[in-house]
Amino acid sequence: MPVSPVRESCALAAPVTAVPDTDRKAASTMRSYHLSPGAAPFGLARREHAVPEPGPGQALVRMRANAVGFRDTLVREADYPLPLAEGVVAGCEGVGEVVAVGAGVSGVAEGDRVALTVFPHWLDGPFAVAYAAQLGGSVDGALAEYAVVAESALVRLPGHLSYEEAVALPLGWLTAWNALTGGRRVLPGETVVALGTGGVSLAVVRLAALAGARVVVTSGDVAGKAGRLRALGAHHVLDRRGDWPAEVRELTGGRGAELVVDVAGSVAESLRAGALGGEVAYVGYRVGDAVTGPPVDARLLFDSGVGVRGVAVGSRAQLVSLMGAVEVHGLRPVVDRVFGFGEVDGALAWHASGRAFGRVVVSHEG
Amino acid sequence: MPVSPVRESCALAAPVTAVPDTDRKAASTMRSYHLSPGAAPFGLARREHAVPEPGPGQALVRMRANAVGFRDTLVREADYPLPLAEGVVAGCEGVGEVVAVGAGVSGVAEGDRVALTVFPHWLDGPFAVAYAAQLGGSVDGALAEYAVVAESALVRLPGHLSYEEAVALPLGWLTAWNALTGGRRVLPGETVVALGTGGVSLAVVRLAALAGARVVVTSGDVAGKAGRLRALGAHHVLDRRGDWPAEVRELTGGRGAELVVDVAGSVAESLRAGALGGEVAYVGYRVGDAVTGPPVDARLLFDSGVGVRGVAVGSRAQLVSLMGAVEVHGLRPVVDRVFGFGEVDGALAWHASGRAFGRVVVSHEG
Amino acid sequence: MPVSPVRESCALAAPVTAVPDTDRKAASTMRSYHLSPGAAPFGLARREHAVPEPGPGQALVRMRANAVGFRDTLVREADYPLPLAEGVVAGCEGVGEVVAVGAGVSGVAEGDRVALTVFPHWLDGPFAVAYAAQLGGSVDGALAEYAVVAESALVRLPGHLSYEEAVALPLGWLTAWNALTGGRRVLPGETVVALGTGGVSLAVVRLAALAGARVVVTSGDVAGKAGRLRALGAHHVLDRRGDWPAEVRELTGGRGAELVVDVAGSVAESLRAGALGGEVAYVGYRVGDAVTGPPVDARLLFDSGVGVRGVAVGSRAQLVSLMGAVEVHGLRPVVDRVFGFGEVDGALAWHASGRAFGRVVVSHEG
Amino acid sequence: MPVSPVRESCALAAPVTAVPDTDRKAASTMRSYHLSPGAAPFGLARREHAVPEPGPGQALVRMRANAVGFRDTLVREADYPLPLAEGVVAGCEGVGEVVAVGAGVSGVAEGDRVALTVFPHWLDGPFAVAYAAQLGGSVDGALAEYAVVAESALVRLPGHLSYEEAVALPLGWLTAWNALTGGRRVLPGETVVALGTGGVSLAVVRLAALAGARVVVTSGDVAGKAGRLRALGAHHVLDRRGDWPAEVRELTGGRGAELVVDVAGSVAESLRAGALGGEVAYVGYRVGDAVTGPPVDARLLFDSGVGVRGVAVGSRAQLVSLMGAVEVHGLRPVVDRVFGFGEVDGALAWHASGRAFGRVVVSHEG
Repeated sequence: MPVSPVRESCALAAPVTAVPDTDRKAASTMRSYHLSPGAAPFGLARREHAVPEPGPGQALVRMRANAVGFRDTLVREADYPLPLAEGVVAGCEGVGEVVAVGAGVSGVAEGDRVALTVFPHWLDGPFAVAYAAQLGGSVDGALAEYAVVAESALVRLPGHLSYEEAVALPLGWLTAWNALTGGRRVLPGETVVALGTGGVSLAVVRLAALAGARVVVTSGDVAGKAGRLRALGAHHVLDRRGDWPAEVRELTGGRGAELVVDVAGSVAESLRAGALGGEVAYVGYRVGDAVTGPPVDARLLFDSGVGVRGVAVGSRAQLVSLMGAVEVHGLRPVVDRVFGFGEVDGALAWHASGRAFGRVVVSHEG
Repeated sequence: MPVSPVRESCALAAPVTAVPDTDRKAASTMRSYHLSPGAAPFGLARREHAVPEPGPGQALVRMRANAVGFRDTLVREADYPLPLAEGVVAGCEGVGEVVAVGAGVSGVAEGDRVALTVFPHWLDGPFAVAYAAQLGGSVDGALAEYAVVAESALVRLPGHLSYEEAVALPLGWLTAWNALTGGRRVLPGETVVALGTGGVSLAVVRLAALAGARVVVTSGDVAGKAGRLRALGAHHVLDRRGDWPAEVRELTGGRGAELVVDVAGSVAESLRAGALGGEVAYVGYRVGDAVTGPPVDARLLFDSGVGVRGVAVGSRAQLVSLMGAVEVHGLRPVVDRVFGFGEVDGALAWHASGRAFGRVVVSHEG
Repeated sequence: MPVSPVRESCALAAPVTAVPDTDRKAASTMRSYHLSPGAAPFGLARREHAVPEPGPGQALVRMRANAVGFRDTLVREADYPLPLAEGVVAGCEGVGEVVAVGAGVSGVAEGDRVALTVFPHWLDGPFAVAYAAQLGGSVDGALAEYAVVAESALVRLPGHLSYEEAVALPLGWLTAWNALTGGRRVLPGETVVALGTGGVSLAVVRLAALAGARVVVTSGDVAGKAGRLRALGAHHVLDRRGDWPAEVRELTGGRGAELVVDVAGSVAESLRAGALGGEVAYVGYRVGDAVTGPPVDARLLFDSGVGVRGVAVGSRAQLVSLMGAVEVHGLRPVVDRVFGFGEVDGALAWHASGRAFGRVVVSHEG
Repeated sequence: MPVSPVRESCALAAPVTAVPDTDRKAASTMRSYHLSPGAAPFGLARREHAVPEPGPGQALVRMRANAVGFRDTLVREADYPLPLAEGVVAGCEGVGEVVAVGAGVSGVAEGDRVALTVFPHWLDGPFAVAYAAQLGGSVDGALAEYAVVAESALVRLPGHLSYEEAVALPLGWLTAWNALTGGRRVLPGETVVALGTGGVSLAVVRLAALAGARVVVTSGDVAGKAGRLRALGAHHVLDRRGDWPAEVRELTGGRGAELVVDVAGSVAESLRAGALGGEVAYVGYRVGDAVTGPPVDARLLFDSGVGVRGVAVGSRAQLVSLMGAVEVHGLRPVVDRVFGFGEVDGALAWHASGRAFGRVVVSHEG
C-alpha cells in the first residue's frame, strides 16, 4: 500500500493531537496512524493523505473499527518478537467494508463486511518465517480510515455481529481459537485454564466452553468478575494471587489441566497446573502491570510431562473456521468501551489501566 | 473365566425358555447366556453354574444391566467381522458392581460401580489385531449374573447414572466417541451427520452437540422424532428417504459435512454428503430392515475428497475420557425400554422391531 | 495471464502440426499449447503471440521443460475431477528460469531456476475448494515458452538437477510425497506398496525407501524391471497380474501393508493388501490400458480396517519440503525420454504406449 | 514377583562384593540386585533366593543381558522423576530367554528370545499416570538371573541380534524412537540434532538417518569420534563446547533444526538451535560430569517458536514397531564394553567415566 504522506501529527508518547474531523476531505483524503520514533521507541504519528486505489487482486476497505491491546503496547516499546518498520500504518486489528476492488478480484465484492487478517501472507498451514509480515509491524496496518489489501487477506464477517464486536475476532479470538484447536486439542470434559480476563482469555473461556471443556479462569478480582465469567462459560474462577496451580490440580482430582492458555509468560505456574500429556499454549508475555514470568527450571519442563507450544495468532484458514463457529452459534465478543478514531490515545491508556473487561475498541462511526 | 456348565436351556432362535427364578441358588450359582448353535448360526443357550472366584489381578462383578442391539443380531447370524467362539458367554455390554477382587488388585475395590470394556485387551492406542478378543465373541461376555474380568478391563461409572443408563456407554456411546474424537475431529461450528436414531447415532447427536458441532440427523420418522432429537442437540432433522446428502450440502452452503458417522454401510450416500477433506466414520453396516449399502464407485471415493475410516468401538483409555465428559456435563443416555434378565429374547425382538428410540436394556434388578 | 492469440495451429487429436522454429520471433513472440475442442473433447491447439509482461507480484518464466502423463490424457478426454476451461494454456508440469519480475517481488529473482506449482493458490494446509484452480485446467498452464505467474506459485529448484529431471517434481513426485507424508505416515520398517512403474509410483519407491520403509512394488514386467526397481529402493517386486494383495500379506507376516499408494483405482485390491489401521492413499484412477477398478464392496471398506484418503498433488509448502529432501540427498528423478517442444504429440503418444520407465519430458532446449 | 531374600551382599556405594559363582545352586536359586539404602540414597544389594514360578498370564525369563546407564545413576542418587521403592529388584533394561510360562499364556513360548518392557503397564497410547510403574523403580526390575513378568510386558527380539546388542533396545533405542516418531515427526531432508554420544544419542543418529533426516550430532571429542559417528549416519559433527546452536542454524540456511533430541537438559541451547515450528524432544537431564542446564528464559520459550515435549521411553506398541524397523534393516546397536553379572559395580563405574561409546552391558553368559 503506497501511501502519500501529507501531514504528520505528533507521536503518541506525546499524546495524539486531535485533528478536527472537518480537516478530512470527504472522498479523497484519509487519516492514518503510523509507527514513528517518539518518546517511546515507537509513537503513533497521524498523517493525512490521498485515499489509495486497489491494484489487481486487491480491495479497498473503508475501516469501521479497530481494537487496541497489549500487542500495541509491546510495539510501542519496540519489545515485540516480530520485525517492526518505521513509518508503516500502525495497528493489526481492523474490520470494515469493501468499497472498491481491483482487477481480477473474485473472492470479495463491494459492500462486503470483512476482517483484515493480521498476517496477510499466512493463508493456511503452520506459522512459518515466510508468513511473518504482520499488519502494523513490517507492513501497513489497520489503524487508518482506508486500507488496500490483497483479497486473500480478507475474511467475511458473520452477519450478526456489529463492527465493534467483530473487531475482536482477527487477533484475540483467533489466538484463542489457535490455542484451543491448533495443538493439543482438548476433548469434551477435559480441563482448560485461561489466565486473567484480557481479550484472549475471555475468548478462551467462551470457545472452550463451546467445545465442551471444563473451564477454569484466574482473576485478580474474583468477587467482581466471577458472575460475568460464569455467564461466558467458566466453571471455576480462581484467585490469581493464590496458589491457583494447586487449586487446578485439586479440581481435577490431582491430574491437572489438559490445556493451559498462558497469556502472561507465567510458564512455571502453568506447568505446575498442567496434566501429564497436557500442553501449555503459550500465547504471550504480558507487559504493563504484570511482568513476564521468572525463568523456568529446566527440570520442571521435563518432570511435569507438560508440553509447551508457542501460539502466534493464526492463519487465514483458521480465521475462516472461527468465523464459522461464531456464526453457527451466534457468539458475541465482549466489548468493554468504544473510543472514536481520534481517541486512539485514550483507548490505549484505558487498556493500559487494566480495568477493561472485554475489548477496547476504536470506532470510525462517530 | 472358566465356567462349569450345569444345565443348558434351549437356544434363542427357538426362544429362550424361561427358567423360574427360584431355580437360582442364592450366593453360589449363577445364570448366563452362551453362544450356541441353533436355528440361527448362533442362538443363546442359558446355563446355570457356580459363581466363579476372581484370580490374581481380577475382579468378580455382579452384573446389574446389559444392553442388546444390532451387534447381537449380527453375532446371531454369524455375520460379524470378528472371531466368534461357540460356548462363550454372550453379550458385550455390561455394567455392575464389584463384589470381590483377587490378589494384587489395586485399581478397583468392592462396591465400585463399573463397566466392562468390550475389548478387554485394548487398553490404549489404535485398534490392533492383538486387541481383537471381544466380550461375547471369542471370550466370555457380559450376559451373565456374574463375570470375572481383569481389573484393567473395568472402568468406574459416573455417579449420577443408573446402571440402566450407564450400560449404553461401553459400546454405543464409546463408538460414537471414537467416531467423533479418534479420527478427523470436527471443530466447533463444523457439521456432523448422524444416520438414524439407533443407540450410536443418538450418542453422536448428544456428543457432537457437546463439542460445538452443527448436528444433522436423518430419520425415517421426522414428524415423530424431531422434537426429541432437537432436545438432544440436533440442529437439523432430515428425512432419510429423501435426498439427504443433497440437503446436507445445501445446509452447509454447498460444502458438505466435515464428518458423517455412518452406521448403515450407506457409504456412497455418506461420501456425497461429505465435505472435501472431511471423513466418513464408518461404524458398521446395519442388518434387519435396512440392508447394507450398495457397492461404492471407486471414482466417488476419489472425487469426493472424503476419507473413510472404520471405527470399532474404542479403547479403555477412550472409555475413561468419555466417562469424564459424561460426568462433567451430567449427560444421560436415552433408555427406551427395560427388560428382565429372563427376557433377553423379548429384548432382542423389541430391538429388531426398529421401534426403539434409545437403548434396549436388560436389567438384573427385577 | 492474458494472452494475445495470434495464430492457432491444429488440434492435437489431429496431431500437432510442426511449426518451423524460425517462425519464432526471438524476444517478442512465443508459442503455447491451448485446450481446444477437437476430435477428443480437448485437443491441443498451438498458438503464437507476444511474450507477456509480469505485473506486480509476478514473475516471467522462460520455460525449459515440461512433462506429460496420465493427467494430460484425462484432460484430453475431459474426464478429470477438476474444472477445465477451453482456451487456457495446457499443461500443469513446468520448470524454467525467471527472466523478469514485476513490482514488489522479493521471493524470486532473475536467473532463478524454478518450478511452477500445479495449484497456484494452494500454498499450505490441506487441499480446499478455494485452491482448486489448476495450471492447464481452469487457469493458464505450463506448456508454453513463457509463463507469467505469481511469485508465490514458484519454488526454487535443487541445484544438482537438470530441468529435464526437475520437471518430475511438481506433479509426480509431489503426489508421492503427499501420499507418504500427508496422511498416515509410515514408520521406518513399515511396508509401503506402490502400484506399477508410472512416474508417481517410481517416486513412491524412491521416497519410501528414503524414509526407511520396506518397499513393495507391482509390475506387469517383473523380469524386465525388477533390477531397476531394486536400484531405486524396492525390496520386493510382485507381478501385478498375480494375487499381489495375498503376496503382500504373506511378506508382512499376515499383517498387510501400512500404506498402499493406489494410482490405478484398484481400491478393492488395495484394501485387501492393507493392514488394520493402515491407509490407501488414493492418488488417481489410471486410464488407457488399465481400467478403473470395479466398485468396492461396502463391507470390505469396513472389515479391512484400512482407511482411504484421496491425494491430490500437494501444497506449495509440501513442494518446498520435498525440494529440501531431494537436495539433501541428491535424489534424481528417472527420465525416460525427452521430446522437443514441437513434439508434444509424440510425447503424449509415447506415454500412452505404456512403455516408458520414468517420465516423458518435453524440453525447450532443442 | 514375590522374592525370598536369602542373603544380602553389601550396597553398591560400598562396591558390590563379588560372590563366587559356585555359591549358586544350579536350577533352584538365583541372584538379583535390589535397591537398598546405602552410602548413596540407593545402593545395590545382591541377594540370593529361590527361582520363582510364573503365575497365570506370566512368563519366567532367564535373563541373558542387562545394560546400565545414566538412569541407574539417577536412581542411585534418588534423583529420579518416578517413584522408587526400597527393596525392589534393580535395573530396567533386560533381555533373555523364556524358560517357562504360566497358565493361559499364548503370546510367548519357551525358547523365545525377549526384551522386558521398561514400563510393564504401558502397552500403547501416550504415557499416563496409570502406566508409571517402572522396572527397577516401583516394581521388580531386570538386574537378576531370572524374572517373572506378564506376557504383555515382553516383546520378541529380532533374530539377527545378540543379547548384548539387543539389550540396548528397550530403554535407549526406544527413547530415541519415541523422540523421533512420537511427536513432531521429521520429514526426510529435515534436520535432527542429537546431543553427545550416549546410548540414546547414538540411537537417534542411526534411526534419524534411517528415516532420511539430515543428522547433526555434538561431541566433546570431534576428532576422536567423528568417523564412527559418520559411519552411523551423521552428516555433521559439531563441537559441543562451541556455539553449536549457531552452527546448526548456519548449516540449515538460518532455519534451525526441526528436531533437537535433548538428553542433557540444555533446553536454552536446544531452543536456540531449533526451527520455528520445530520441537525439542526433551529426553532427560544428564548427571555426572555434565550438569543440568540453567533455567530457561520464559521469553525464549515463546520467541523461538520451538515446542518442548518431554519423552519418557515409550510404550510396548512403540517397542514392537522399533523391533520391526531394526529387523527389516538389520540394524545393530553399538556395544561399548561387556561386564559379567558379578561386575555391575565396575560397569556402572565405567559408564560414569564418560569414556564409553555405545552401551555398557552386563552379560549373564560368562
